Amino acid sequence: MDEYLSALDTELRHAVITPESAYTAYYGMFRYHLGWTDTQFVETQTNPGKRIRPLLCLLACETLTGDWRRAMPAAVAIELAHNFSLIHDDIEDASDERRGRAAVWKVWGLAQGLNAGDGMFVLARLALDQMMERGYPIAKCNAVSRVFDAATLALCHGQFLDLGFEVRDDVTIDEYMQMVGGKTAALISAATRIGAMLATDDAQMIAAFARFGENIGTAFQITDDILGIWGDPQITGKSAASDILSKKKSLPAIFGLSHPRFGEALRAIYRKPALDQPDIARVMVLLDAIGARAYAEQRADEYRAAALAALAETGIANRAMSLLRDAAELMTRRVR
Amino acid sequence: MDEYLSALDTELRHAVITPESAYTAYYGMFRYHLGWTDTQFVETQTNPGKRIRPLLCLLACETLTGDWRRAMPAAVAIELAHNFSLIHDDIEDASDERRGRAAVWKVWGLAQGLNAGDGMFVLARLALDQMMERGYPIAKCNAVSRVFDAATLALCHGQFLDLGFEVRDDVTIDEYMQMVGGKTAALISAATRIGAMLATDDAQMIAAFARFGENIGTAFQITDDILGIWGDPQITGKSAASDILSKKKSLPAIFGLSHPRFGEALRAIYRKPALDQPDIARVMVLLDAIGARAYAEQRADEYRAAALAALAETGIANRAMSLLRDAAELMTRRVR
Repeated sequence: MDEYLSALDTELRHAVITPESAYTAYYGMFRYHLGWTDTQFVETQTNPGKRIRPLLCLLACETLTGDWRRAMPAAVAIELAHNFSLIHDDIEDASDERRGRAAVWKVWGLAQGLNAGDGMFVLARLALDQMMERGYPIAKCNAVSRVFDAATLALCHGQFLDLGFEVRDDVTIDEYMQMVGGKTAALISAATRIGAMLATDDAQMIAAFARFGENIGTAFQITDDILGIWGDPQITGKSAASDILSKKKSLPAIFGLSHPRFGEALRAIYRKPALDQPDIARVMVLLDAIGARAYAEQRADEYRAAALAALAETGIANRAMSLLRDAAELMTRRVR
Repeated sequence: MDEYLSALDTELRHAVITPESAYTAYYGMFRYHLGWTDTQFVETQTNPGKRIRPLLCLLACETLTGDWRRAMPAAVAIELAHNFSLIHDDIEDASDERRGRAAVWKVWGLAQGLNAGDGMFVLARLALDQMMERGYPIAKCNAVSRVFDAATLALCHGQFLDLGFEVRDDVTIDEYMQMVGGKTAALISAATRIGAMLATDDAQMIAAFARFGENIGTAFQITDDILGIWGDPQITGKSAASDILSKKKSLPAIFGLSHPRFGEALRAIYRKPALDQPDIARVMVLLDAIGARAYAEQRADEYRAAALAALAETGIANRAMSLLRDAAELMTRRVR
C-alpha cells in the first residue's frame, strides 16, 4: 500500500499548509500530531498512525472504478476527522501520550490543545470542500458532506456514552455495542460508504460498502479490546493488561462485570480507586475462568464474517477487492 | 424583535431534539447551555444570550427580500456555531460561569463539556444541511456551507492568537485587530454575508453585507473591551474593571502596554502573578492618563462608521434596514 500511503501523505500535508505566518505554531501543532515534526516543528519521521480509514475509503472507490485517486479529498477529510477526535480524546481521557509521543495538549497545554482539535475538525470539512474543485457533481458533494456530518455526530454520541461508562459498573453489552457503533464503526463505515459513493450511484452497492465498514469497524474495536487485555506488550507497545489497569469498559470487561456468577467479584475489584498487580492478576483469572476472551473473539469473528459477507454481496472480484479483504484481516488480527 | 426571537428559539429547539433516549443527558447539556433547562434538565427560563448573530442574518435577508424566515436554517447554524465556541472557550479560559450560571464543563466535567462543544459544532453543520430541505438550490447550499466553514476556521485562528496573547506583554494593535477579525468579526460577517447570499446572487450586494458584518463585529468587540474596563458593574454584571483583574489583552490594555512613555509601568504591574485593588487603581489611572479609553472609543466609532457606510452602499431603505442600523447602534452602545 506504499503508493496509496505516499499519495495520501502528500495530500494530507497540502490540507494543513500554514495560511500565514501568524498561524505557524497553530499549524505546527497539526503537523506534530500527524507525525511530521517534533515539538519545535523540525521535520522528523515518526509513527503517523495506521491510516486505516482513508485506505479503506480509497480501496472502496478502487474496487468499483479501478481508480483510487478520485476518492482522495474524502480520504483526507476522514483521516483529519479521525485525528480531530484523537486530539480531543486525549484531553478527555487525560492521556499523556499518543503514538509514543507526548499528546498535543501535554506539549502546548489544554487550551491550545483543545483549540487545535477544533481546527483539525474544520480542516477536515475544508478538505471535503476540495471535492468541488475536483469536478464532482455538486449533488454528490452535498450527499457526501451529509454522510460525513452524520458520522461525526455519531462519533460525538459514542464518545458521550464511553465517557459515561467510566463511572458505571453496570454497562450492558447492548450499550457497549451502541457506543462502538458511534465511536469506532461510524467513521469507518463513512469511509467505505463515501469511497463507494464517489464511484457509483448504485444505492445497493453503496449500502453494501457501508455495511462492510460498519461491521469491520466493530470487529476492529473488539479486537483492540482483546489486545488491550491479552496483547503482547512487546507488540502493542502498551503495558500488559493495560485496559484492566485503567479499568476500561471494554467488551471482555463488560462481559465479566455483568456475569451472573463472577460479576460481583469483579465489580468489587473495579470499585477500588486503583488496582495493584494482585488485583490485575485476579481479574485475569476471573475473565479466563468465565471465557471472556473466547466470548469477545467470537463476537469479533461474527462481525468480521458479516463484513466479508457484505463485500461478497457486491460480486466484485479484483485486486482492490483482495486488498480490502486483506485490510479486514489485518484489522482483526489478534497478534499485533 | 420578539417575533424573530421566538421563531428562532423554536427552530433552535428543533435543532437539538434528542434523537434517542440514550443521549438524553447529551442533548440535555445543549439545552442547559442554551438557557432552556436547569442542570437536572427541568425546563426553566434563563438568559439565552443576545442572539445577535442570527438576528443579523435574518435581517440581512429581509432587507433584500422582505422575508426573514428563509434565512432561518443558516441563522440557527450560526447561533449553534457561536455556542460551540462559547462552550470550548469556557474550558480554555477556565471560566466557571456563562450567562450567570455554571458553565457546562463545571457542571458535567471537562471531558463531557469538551465533547458537548464538539456535538454543538456538528449540530450547527446539520442545521445548515436543513437548507437543502427548504428548497434552496444545491449550488447555493454549497456556497453557504463554504462560507460557514471558512468562518469557523477563522474562529479557531482567532482563538489561537488570543490564547497566545495571555502569556505575552508585547502584543501589537495590528495583532489584536487580526485576532478580533477571527475571533469575533468572522462569524458576524458570515451571518450577514449568508443572510444576503440567501436573498440574492448579486456579488457586490453580498460583499457589502459581509463588510457590514465584519466592521460592526469589530466595533462590537472593541465596545465589549471598553465595557470590560469602564462598564458599570450594575449593568455589565461583571465586577468593576474585570478585564484589568484578569489581565486580558483587550484593546485599551494593549494600547497602554505598548505606550512609549507609560508602557513599562503598566507591564511591570501586569508581570505580577495577581493584581490587587491598588494595582487595578493604578492601571486605571495610567490608562486614563494616556487616553486609552478615548483611543478605543475612536477605533470603535471608525469601525461602526465603516459598517454603516457599507449598509448605505446597498441603497436599500426599508424597515429591516432600519432594524439593522438599530442593531449596529445597540452593539456599540457604551452604556449597557
